[in-house]
Amino acid sequence: MPGEDKLIQHIARAIPSFSGVAGKLEGVELGIGDDAMVIPGQGGEDWVVTVDAFAEGVHFLVDRHPPESVGYKSLARAASDVAAMGAHPRFFLLTLGLPLTRSGLWLDRMLKGMAKAARALGIRLVGGDTTQTANILMSLTVIGRIRHGQAITRSGAKPGDLLYVSGRLGQAMLGLELVLNQHQRDRSLQSLLKPHLYPRVRVELGAWLASNRVASAMIDISDGLSTDLARLCSASGVGAQIAAGKIPVVAVPMTLARRLKHVVDPIAMALHGGEDYELLFSVPKRRVPKLRNAPGFNDLTEIGKVVPGKAVMLIDIDGGEHPLLPRGWDPFGRASRPKC
Amino acid sequence: MPGEDKLIQHIARAIPSFSGVAGKLEGVELGIGDDAMVIPGQGGEDWVVTVDAFAEGVHFLVDRHPPESVGYKSLARAASDVAAMGAHPRFFLLTLGLPLTRSGLWLDRMLKGMAKAARALGIRLVGGDTTQTANILMSLTVIGRIRHGQAITRSGAKPGDLLYVSGRLGQAMLGLELVLNQHQRDRSLQSLLKPHLYPRVRVELGAWLASNRVASAMIDISDGLSTDLARLCSASGVGAQIAAGKIPVVAVPMTLARRLKHVVDPIAMALHGGEDYELLFSVPKRRVPKLRNAPGFNDLTEIGKVVPGKAVMLIDIDGGEHPLLPRGWDPFGRASRPKC
Repeated sequence: MPGEDKLIQHIARAIPSFSGVAGKLEGVELGIGDDAMVIPGQGGEDWVVTVDAFAEGVHFLVDRHPPESVGYKSLARAASDVAAMGAHPRFFLLTLGLPLTRSGLWLDRMLKGMAKAARALGIRLVGGDTTQTANILMSLTVIGRIRHGQAITRSGAKPGDLLYVSGRLGQAMLGLELVLNQHQRDRSLQSLLKPHLYPRVRVELGAWLASNRVASAMIDISDGLSTDLARLCSASGVGAQIAAGKIPVVAVPMTLARRLKHVVDPIAMALHGGEDYELLFSVPKRRVPKLRNAPGFNDLTEIGKVVPGKAVMLIDIDGGEHPLLPRGWDPFGRASRPKC
Repeated sequence: MPGEDKLIQHIARAIPSFSGVAGKLEGVELGIGDDAMVIPGQGGEDWVVTVDAFAEGVHFLVDRHPPESVGYKSLARAASDVAAMGAHPRFFLLTLGLPLTRSGLWLDRMLKGMAKAARALGIRLVGGDTTQTANILMSLTVIGRIRHGQAITRSGAKPGDLLYVSGRLGQAMLGLELVLNQHQRDRSLQSLLKPHLYPRVRVELGAWLASNRVASAMIDISDGLSTDLARLCSASGVGAQIAAGKIPVVAVPMTLARRLKHVVDPIAMALHGGEDYELLFSVPKRRVPKLRNAPGFNDLTEIGKVVPGKAVMLIDIDGGEHPLLPRGWDPFGRASRPKC
């Protein structure tokens, strides 16, 4: 079985499809291969549309993850794809595949979490479909809004641009480790669990970068920096050099490290952990000064630069250069996130 | 467990949602409770957006239904919701949950069928998400296009309007009976299997009814006439009287009836069978003469009328009146379609 990206390419070749690379189609500017598609709206606005799946046993463990988190996160991660275009999430449609045994209390708690995310994002449910399934599977279609022509794709990075990330990477992976180690109900660890269970979506930052035309390319880090940086570089036809010492990594309390079953490596979690839903974006050098006005500027870190070619390189703290292979999370990968 | 309609109401109450009943929201005119939502596009056009789930063991049996049919039908039925608004399907996004064991030949055959439907509908894949799942589950987001303000909802039927259906009802149910009786590979039965395996979508008719403003309300018959008529009446706040003798029912060859394990009742299949994807629509009397110009007019049948009140009544051939209860297909119902 190939990985997810290869599978998507395979599907796109088999079915009449549109990637937007070859120009517009009925005013539609962007299709397969980015975080979301863009269709023209009225009054100088565009709509962006994305879908995101959230499956029991793959994205969450029904006996470990609180239903509230499942509802919250399923919507937050789908909305993050819209934020990664620089758009404001506005509406969503929900496909809910549910076993009969989950249609009572579990459903109500899940909906409570989803409602919380919807309120936090200012987004409304406008349609959907429900069906009975053996395992829980949700698919969320999120529709966002942005000024015409401002959507930030993955494909605009140019050599010389600087690369930035928001937040600290690996926090969600640390939270997952805690859940896998059965610490999900430990009240003293709630702040460490939160980035995994109730991730923040960087709507304000994404929208600012788009409306001020500061970022040349952008993607949300859903599957890990190594994988999503490779996607951004591939879409832009560029390479990248990032410095290990610059990456803002999760802080793992010493006392906690001892309680976990195996060694957690903050830099590995930051590079390959995924689910952080932070933004990774490139900024042309001449626009860097403007970045200081970004909301949450103090949360932004420059981690490297875009270079010509195809190679994505990691520069170690001792100056050694190594190819950074995409080893982030893949729902079809083998050596990926622990599954139930 | 309540039925699907109750479940949807439950979800819509639990989450900030928008039905369109209370007016517009950011130019959006229609949300939960219709076949699709409508968002404003540019140049006097609107976009309609719908999602539709298609699940192994619920909507299809993986050991009985050809993968080509699964791919074709999953897209056709989603596009039918767009046709039922009077819009032209244009783009789609695919969420594909797939077990590893289905990622080879099964996937390729499924995609072949989906590509066939995409070409027939003139619709392109523009995005999606893939994930590993225990059972196959697909969710299709279809985006269609229509002139601003022309979308036909479920809620515009008025007492006195006449009710029409396209095609013959129960054909898909007969095809399902054949599949359940292991006749899916019988070449002599292909024409009877086709409406179930490769359903036609009434795009041209729906678009004509919308652009000529002939229909006051419309829905596609996906879950059975009894269920979908009840939905149209409920959304419109009206009742209906339909005549059993007028309903265009599937023709069951005598020789075939003997080969099936149990008695098939054409009128019951037509009323409750579902999956026909024919259009059910109401037409104000003054616009009935115009209907003669509809594409496929000879395929249309007047089956009754809209009346004041809430009751949906079936008038028997002998003149007796009975309430027509929604006994069509429900993915959460008990006495519904046979499941694997």
